[in-house]
Amino acid sequence: MSVIAITDVLTGKHPVDQEITVHGWVRTRRDSKAGISFLAIHDGSCFDAIQAIVPSELDNYQSDILKVTTGAAVVVTGTLVESPGQGQAFEIQATKVEVLGFVEDPDTYPMAAKRHSIEFLREHAHLRARTNLGGAVTRVRNSLAQAIHRFLHEKGYLWISTPLITGSDCEGAGEMFRVSTLDLENLPRTDKGEVDFNQDFFGKETFLTVSGQLNVETYCCALSKVYTFGPTFRAENSNTSRHLAEFWMVEPEIAFADLSDAADLAEEMLKYVFKAVLEERADDLAFFQQRVDKTVIDRLNSVVNSDFVRLDYTDAITILENCGKTFENPVSWGVDLNSEHERFLAEEHFNGPVVLKNYPKDIKSFYMRLNDDGKTVAAMDILAPGIGEIIGGSQREERLDVLDQRLAEMNLDKDDYSWYRDLRKYGTVPHSGFGLGFERLVAYATGVSNVRDVIPFPRTPNNASF
Amino acid sequence: MSVIAITDVLTGKHPVDQEITVHGWVRTRRDSKAGISFLAIHDGSCFDAIQAIVPSELDNYQSDILKVTTGAAVVVTGTLVESPGQGQAFEIQATKVEVLGFVEDPDTYPMAAKRHSIEFLREHAHLRARTNLGGAVTRVRNSLAQAIHRFLHEKGYLWISTPLITGSDCEGAGEMFRVSTLDLENLPRTDKGEVDFNQDFFGKETFLTVSGQLNVETYCCALSKVYTFGPTFRAENSNTSRHLAEFWMVEPEIAFADLSDAADLAEEMLKYVFKAVLEERADDLAFFQQRVDKTVIDRLNSVVNSDFVRLDYTDAITILENCGKTFENPVSWGVDLNSEHERFLAEEHFNGPVVLKNYPKDIKSFYMRLNDDGKTVAAMDILAPGIGEIIGGSQREERLDVLDQRLAEMNLDKDDYSWYRDLRKYGTVPHSGFGLGFERLVAYATGVSNVRDVIPFPRTPNNASF
Repeated sequence: MSVIAITDVLTGKHPVDQEITVHGWVRTRRDSKAGISFLAIHDGSCFDAIQAIVPSELDNYQSDILKVTTGAAVVVTGTLVESPGQGQAFEIQATKVEVLGFVEDPDTYPMAAKRHSIEFLREHAHLRARTNLGGAVTRVRNSLAQAIHRFLHEKGYLWISTPLITGSDCEGAGEMFRVSTLDLENLPRTDKGEVDFNQDFFGKETFLTVSGQLNVETYCCALSKVYTFGPTFRAENSNTSRHLAEFWMVEPEIAFADLSDAADLAEEMLKYVFKAVLEERADDLAFFQQRVDKTVIDRLNSVVNSDFVRLDYTDAITILENCGKTFENPVSWGVDLNSEHERFLAEEHFNGPVVLKNYPKDIKSFYMRLNDDGKTVAAMDILAPGIGEIIGGSQREERLDVLDQRLAEMNLDKDDYSWYRDLRKYGTVPHSGFGLGFERLVAYATGVSNVRDVIPFPRTPNNASF
Repeated sequence: MSVIAITDVLTGKHPVDQEITVHGWVRTRRDSKAGISFLAIHDGSCFDAIQAIVPSELDNYQSDILKVTTGAAVVVTGTLVESPGQGQAFEIQATKVEVLGFVEDPDTYPMAAKRHSIEFLREHAHLRARTNLGGAVTRVRNSLAQAIHRFLHEKGYLWISTPLITGSDCEGAGEMFRVSTLDLENLPRTDKGEVDFNQDFFGKETFLTVSGQLNVETYCCALSKVYTFGPTFRAENSNTSRHLAEFWMVEPEIAFADLSDAADLAEEMLKYVFKAVLEERADDLAFFQQRVDKTVIDRLNSVVNSDFVRLDYTDAITILENCGKTFENPVSWGVDLNSEHERFLAEEHFNGPVVLKNYPKDIKSFYMRLNDDGKTVAAMDILAPGIGEIIGGSQREERLDVLDQRLAEMNLDKDDYSWYRDLRKYGTVPHSGFGLGFERLVAYATGVSNVRDVIPFPRTPNNASF
């Protein structure tokens, strides 16, 4: 079969007054008193449906067309004409309509043409791509992902697939999923009576990774410009609108680069991908603007056109202490910032994206580069109005002696990091990188407030349906 | 820092007789009797290194330059000149060389400049990207991945991230990894004494997915053209050169499409991505041709320029039965084909890629569309000379009654597939798709014979290092 995408038809890529065939699903059917039916047919290639005008003269008008309901699959052949009606440039004067698949029991069809709650859609995740919202989210998500790959590829970054199953625990954090093939009803034991992981699939304890960063540094310290774009996992019992147990991360890592270079790359990348979405998915963004978040297009344009503020953590604390606002979580030098502080800075104080940098070392990870003041590390968070933290990054500690000292301070065993330390033993270089939570990016670009609604099948505590 | 990529210098993108600074690692150092050192510097942006000519007059010549060894990180500033020597178009007359990182104890540096066995490199996976082989594999892998995204994006396919953690078992196969946060030393039990998975993170048993296909069908049956490109897992104790416990898969899924459409897309995609690699990575392919597999460039060109043969399984059996060759595994209608049969067909009989289709239903999965003969299903494998099966796909059974009958035949509980069955209840359409094992593709495009050597950190039985 040669299938024509409806987006190509609606954007004028096919000659009018000629025969055309489109394939898709019926969004709505309307019958006129004059014995004509109007079918709105979509195929997912764009937000809009194309209208087919179906005369009652068709052989199967009574038997099929009048039984067609929302969700039915059809193949429509007819003449493509310019539409006299409003809201569409073209429509099809149908000469043949074949119904490939009816909707069984339309009254109980979960995706009938009405507005559904976002929670209802989440419970029907296998069907929600059929809704306006689900389709628009998917196209914007795709547009962002493609733009990320394209941007980094054009700049010479190599995509690296770091492992998902890992024997190491990236940041000394504990909240990981175990991966195992051991029979739980019959666990092998060592002489000491402990679970014998030597008999597990990988011959040791293994987990799902929380970040590809340490792994991708090995490629950065060989090939200079690299990035990961893959799934990561957190076994945290967080039931918030910003957390998923399984989510996608983008992690560029740049050799011969300091924190400022990483911030520059992050700013350029965010602007590039938002610009791509504004250009490629104007139809879907118009929908989000109308139905989900009235500020979404302005917000994206504002990021594209703004210069990101660069601000030291220490200066941010001064601003927060003197702003006259009372925060739920009090602020003083040394504390980690909460969402309320981040949003105040990005939304109220600067009203634009802020790169916050040089955090106290005690609230950051061992691998972040110690600054000359001995108190702070070259870490950054990028805060955006309307969402708070969207990117976190740092310059990595490239000096072996300082790294070892940091590992010791944090009670981490340096033998566990022998391969990571090798990168500093052998031709070490300054390098920096950051992580972008992809679902948070999609949420930001669509105005959808919960990350569960921008990933096809969300995994959260007590939910791994489908 | 503003870093210039060495590939841009070597391809003439920078003016000669002007000052330039490059960053990279020393591949080799050679000292002339005249008191000049030659450093070959690479940065991963291309196969070749650039030569820097370092005069002994530099302040740090004795203290630094003469101590530089393979793997040291340097920043070289000097005048870019046309090279009088063979093998390079440009070189740098250095006026300043800064050593960012020496190699500690060069005599024990694992990646010293000599030829290493592929097994040795695998044991040092954190450093192997520093070798010619590791760099070339990474660039080709990246080129293939980018080409796949680009090809599908340009054709209107939407990238869908299907879940990695799943409560379902895609094909009724058993070899999956368990994902759990239960404390193995203190397993919760039900009243009946069984492990109580209600208390596990997701409130039920969960595993790592073996395929995103069933999930992505839900998006295909809403948005027409979709694909996955993500990791998949097999807990099979297979120690072969073709198997990994964790590997990447590309799975396009097309609505309003039969098996022949899927075969067309697969053929077009393979040609597109091989053409991209031939154009973009001629330098790396020349290396593979010289050092790894003398036929690799010819083989890729041959796929690009051939028409894939389409052949029914039944006809393949006739060919195999009558070819006069004795196979280790005897052939008759109904048996699954082995690698020896597949390679005979692709390499000896047709000497080109073969789409083998319409297999006996009893050796294929429940979701493959039953053909009118009642004996075969619309499945395909694409066989390529030099590797055997590289793609597997099928038209999916879109008829609910036939699907239910197949589930029953295979003793699968249709309640476990209720969401999959919904796709057939509500606006069902013919649809087809295939899966491409990405590491097998990279192995094919490089001539590297073991998939463990084309993924950064391979996971195999008893190995999850790094």
